This record gives sequence, structure tokens and C-alpha cells, in this order.
Amino acid sequence: MHIALDAMGGDYAPGPIVAGAVQAISQDGDLRVTLVGDEAQIQPLLDQFGRSDRLGVFHCSQAIGMEESPTVGLRRKPDNSISRCWQLLAQARVDGIVSAGNTGAMVAGGLMSRRFLAGVERPGIATIMPTMRGPCLILDVGANIYPKATHLYQYGVMGLIYARHILKKENPSIGLINVGSEDGKGPELHRITADLFNKFPIKGSYKGNVEGRDIHRGSVDVVICDGFVGNVILKVCEGITEFILKVVAREISESLTVERDKGINTLTNLAQKYHYSEFGGAPLLGIDGICIVCHGSSDDRAIRNALAVAARHARAGLNQLITKELESQQQHLSLASI
Amino acid sequence: MHIALDAMGGDYAPGPIVAGAVQAISQDGDLRVTLVGDEAQIQPLLDQFGRSDRLGVFHCSQAIGMEESPTVGLRRKPDNSISRCWQLLAQARVDGIVSAGNTGAMVAGGLMSRRFLAGVERPGIATIMPTMRGPCLILDVGANIYPKATHLYQYGVMGLIYARHILKKENPSIGLINVGSEDGKGPELHRITADLFNKFPIKGSYKGNVEGRDIHRGSVDVVICDGFVGNVILKVCEGITEFILKVVAREISESLTVERDKGINTLTNLAQKYHYSEFGGAPLLGIDGICIVCHGSSDDRAIRNALAVAARHARAGLNQLITKELESQQQHLSLASI
Repeated sequence: MHIALDAMGGDYAPGPIVAGAVQAISQDGDLRVTLVGDEAQIQPLLDQFGRSDRLGVFHCSQAIGMEESPTVGLRRKPDNSISRCWQLLAQARVDGIVSAGNTGAMVAGGLMSRRFLAGVERPGIATIMPTMRGPCLILDVGANIYPKATHLYQYGVMGLIYARHILKKENPSIGLINVGSEDGKGPELHRITADLFNKFPIKGSYKGNVEGRDIHRGSVDVVICDGFVGNVILKVCEGITEFILKVVAREISESLTVERDKGINTLTNLAQKYHYSEFGGAPLLGIDGICIVCHGSSDDRAIRNALAVAARHARAGLNQLITKELESQQQHLSLASI
Repeated sequence: MHIALDAMGGDYAPGPIVAGAVQAISQDGDLRVTLVGDEAQIQPLLDQFGRSDRLGVFHCSQAIGMEESPTVGLRRKPDNSISRCWQLLAQARVDGIVSAGNTGAMVAGGLMSRRFLAGVERPGIATIMPTMRGPCLILDVGANIYPKATHLYQYGVMGLIYARHILKKENPSIGLINVGSEDGKGPELHRITADLFNKFPIKGSYKGNVEGRDIHRGSVDVVICDGFVGNVILKVCEGITEFILKVVAREISESLTVERDKGINTLTNLAQKYHYSEFGGAPLLGIDGICIVCHGSSDDRAIRNALAVAARHARAGLNQLITKELESQQQHLSLASI
């Protein structure tokens, strides 16, 4: 298992990135990580955090800034760490790549690499949300802001495989985010997508439209949406979680006396438990190879978890399972068209 | 101050609707309410909750179901309570209307009435969210899922007036929901809308793109989005608030002993404080007249608060202030084009 890690990506890179890589390989004896970035910055960090024969460095001289235009960055900086990660994947020198860098540049790099799984027209970023009934996968959360219905359908298939084999849900269900649960609601794109879900082999898993409030109620296991809506959902959830936990902490702190510390500790642990860094980044599904996109402000724990998730996806044969499912659907379609 | 209240609208109508009206007029000596709906159902409720010469009934024989198609409902049921409310407003027999019924039918009824304020091309539903820095107005949350840039710009102007005169913010700021904060991000619609904000007189209030997490951080006072995204945001917030408060209650309940009841009471009060029924419904801005759309599961408290909000908006001259602002912008534009 060999993962290329963008050492220059993230608000605090390369420090916590290198630290996270060191932690990950110490936890997983079969994991190799290649740190992609400026050797002059990485080597002193390896001196600090520890070296290993399973931890290599691939030097590159440039990095795309977190706020930089992805297309401009990729064009003007040919030796940037994100493009180098994608090249290592394209050359099959690694099994997967992980980056906490500029998400737009990661996605654009993936689109330019054209290393999509057979049957996938556009990759999508998936993320896991905790709900009343266990984890829910939501995709796309930002790779594809103008999806076609076939893209959304493919997100459904990929999400289903993910929910079954990674989240270990026996009969996962899929819902399409809309402004109402009734059929025929919302934009034209949603009606065409619903037709696809209802016609194709996974129709048994498709539960129709779901509304925003259904996500955290755990009404379905996989939530499909366009990348604009998904990105807004993801960030709204981050903001409101912060807000509610702060308000709760203030009120609990004011109302309790003898058990105040216990109450605050409980809230701190909860905030930690639901912090994005626990979830190990978001997979860019549909890429031939494992690709994990991490939050820009990832710390060492987030990077360690993302590397562990990348290794887990590769070992579970996630992409082979997706390809197999999409192929069987193609056969169904060919038979249907005879 | 005379408000028409859709007595048949809402999951539990007409009981809590009538009860809320009785409470509202007892709190506001200058408020008159006309209950629009089935007299046979309303009269016994008035016997139960109390009569007043400021509480009338306008009988109609039909009601549009909560899950019914708005267009089908409005067409097939000419004597429905929502259409009757809009007619009372069109005939200037009331100053405003309030409904917890089918939101789509309320909006469609408003579009069909064509009673828009001068300078407004499409009304939008606005809702108030609590944030780290006080209330934030977000619009549109469901009236207009395919807005033009001029619609979004007008939402900005209306939101600004609302924030200044109703939320009492001295120099309110506006942000446009997008997938990143940098200029030029996201869909074409957002770039055109940003151009309008930057060119027009309210440019000083426009802070550019905001992301989902900015809403609850209180980064701006008014958040502009299309009705699809806004509706999803609203419902995601409802779902995740429920979820977090339940998880917190479980953990607090498990970790505390002597102060367990105190802790749970604090959380119950918080849930109450941030419950939608406290916020008194969402105004449909841009209508010539006051129009408040309430949550489908409104209880008497929610209806009472919505009637109070309707009266407050009318007394503040909200619509006159909006019209004046839009007119002054027209003048600016005319001068600019000389």
C-alpha cells in the first residue's frame, strides 16, 4: 500500500502533514507514504518527527496556494505538489493520493488526469456525516457544480457501493436532495435524475426526494446532490455545529455549579468526536486510484486518519467493486435495449 | 391592523391556528384577525378558545393539502383558504396575510396575484437565523429556485432594509452564498450578481461571496441565495440542530449525576429558544402587503408570533421603506445612464 501525500497542501503545511504521515506509518506496518513537496522544508521535519524506510520524499519546487485560482495555479506552476501527486498516480507508482491543499486544484488535477473508473463520467467528492441512525454519505460536495443527471446517477451507484462495503450497511438506501419530498418537485435535473434511479437496476435502493432535515435524521444512507448544494451543506453543518456547541457550552457553564467541569468536558469530547479531523477526509470517488481530499485546516490527526482511510479503501477494493457494479448495469442496459 | 389568517393551513389546522389567533389579539389591542376557512370547523374552536369583536371568520369551503401539488390545488379548488387570503389582500380588505399551509401554494398564489412592490420582479422568502453575532436574514429560502441575477440583487436590497429597520442593524452587510469566498468562484449567475452588487448603490454593504460556515459565524447580516439552496440550508439547519441537541442531551444525561436535571433543563430551554416557532414565520418579501409563511407544523405559539411579526412589519412601514430604496436606486441608474 503506497500513498503519495501532498506535503505542501493545507493551511499549516508542511509541519502537521509530515507529522501525520509519521504517525500513520507507525500505526500501519504495510503502509508506505511518499511526501511530495519541497525537500528543504520536509527533511528538517523528518529529523524532528522521525524517519522510516517506508517514508520517502518526492521533491518538487512549487505549491499552489490555498486561495489561488486552481486553473491559474496548475498552469503557471507545472512543478506543483498537487500535479506531482496526480502524476505519481497516473504512472501507477502509488495506489492513492492524499492532499489537504487547494480542493479546486485537486479536483481539476483529477479531471485533467482523466483517470476515471470505467462507467464514470465525472468524479464526485463524498463526505460522511453522523446522523441519528449512524453515518450517512453525501455526494457530491464540491467537485461538480453543474452535474448532468447521469453524473448524479453514477454518484448514487458509487455511494451505494461505499455504504455497503465501507460503511457496512446491509441494504443501503439513496435519496436525492430536493425542496420537497413529493415526486416531480424541484428543478428539471431532479426529475430526469429520479427517472434514471427509478428505471435502472438500483431502483430498489432509491427512496426518492429527501429534504435537508432528512440528512441528520438518517432517513437514507446516501444523499445525492450537486456539488454546489453539497458544498454549502457541508460548510453550513460545520458552522452551525460550532455555533450550537458554543451556545450550549455557555449555557451549561452558567447553569451548573458542582458538575460544571464534568459538563464542559462532555461537550469538549463531543466537539472532538464530531470534528471533521476524525473522519479522515473526503474521498474523490470515480478516480482510478484512491484520492482523499482533506480539510484545509487539517492537523496531524486529520492527516493520519486520511492516510488510514486511503489504505482502507484500497484494501477493500472499493474501486473494483464500483467498476463491477457499473459494468453489471451496462449489461442490464444492453439487454434492455435488445 | 388587520391580518387574514389561513385557518386551514398547517399539519394540525385548524385547532392551533385558531388558538394562536386568540392569543395574538389578546396581546395586541390594535390587531384584528380574520380567520379564513371552514366556518363549521372554526366556530366550535372559537367557543373553546374565546371570541372577540376583533376576530372574524371568512368562510371558504376548500383547503389545499400540505403535500398537494400547489398548481393543481390552486386550479381545482377555487374556494381554497390560501386563494381567499390572497383575494382579501388584493381587495385591500386586510393589511397582510399569514399561513402555515402549503408553502408552494402560498408562493404560487402570491405570484398569481401579481401584487409585487414597485421595482421587485420576484418575491422571496426570508428567514432569520441566530448566529454568533445576533440574527442573520437569509433569503430566498424557497420561493424562487431559478432566480435571475436581478432577483438576487433585489433580495439584497430588501434584506438590507429588513436588517436595518426590523433587525435594527446600523450598517448591515450582505453576502452571496458560494462555494468559495474568492471573487469569480462558482456559477455564472453568481458572477453576474456580484457585478450588480458592486456596481449599484448598495455596494458599500456588499461583502462578496460567503461560504456556508459564515452564516452561523455571523460574518454578514444578510445572506443571499437561490431558493433551492436556501430551502436546503433552512432544513439542514433544522435537522442538525435536532441531532446535536439530542446527542448533547444523551451525553450530558449520562455524564452528570447530582446536576443532571439542571443540565437537561438548560438544554430543553435552549431547544425552545432556537425552535422555529419562536421566530414567527418567514416573510415573503416583495409583496405589496405583508405576507408571512409559517412552518407546516406550527403550534399556537408559532401562529401567535407570526401574527405579531406581521403587525410589526406593517407598523414599521417595511414595504414603504423597500419601495423608497428601490426607487432611489432607479434614480441612480437613470442618472448613470444619461
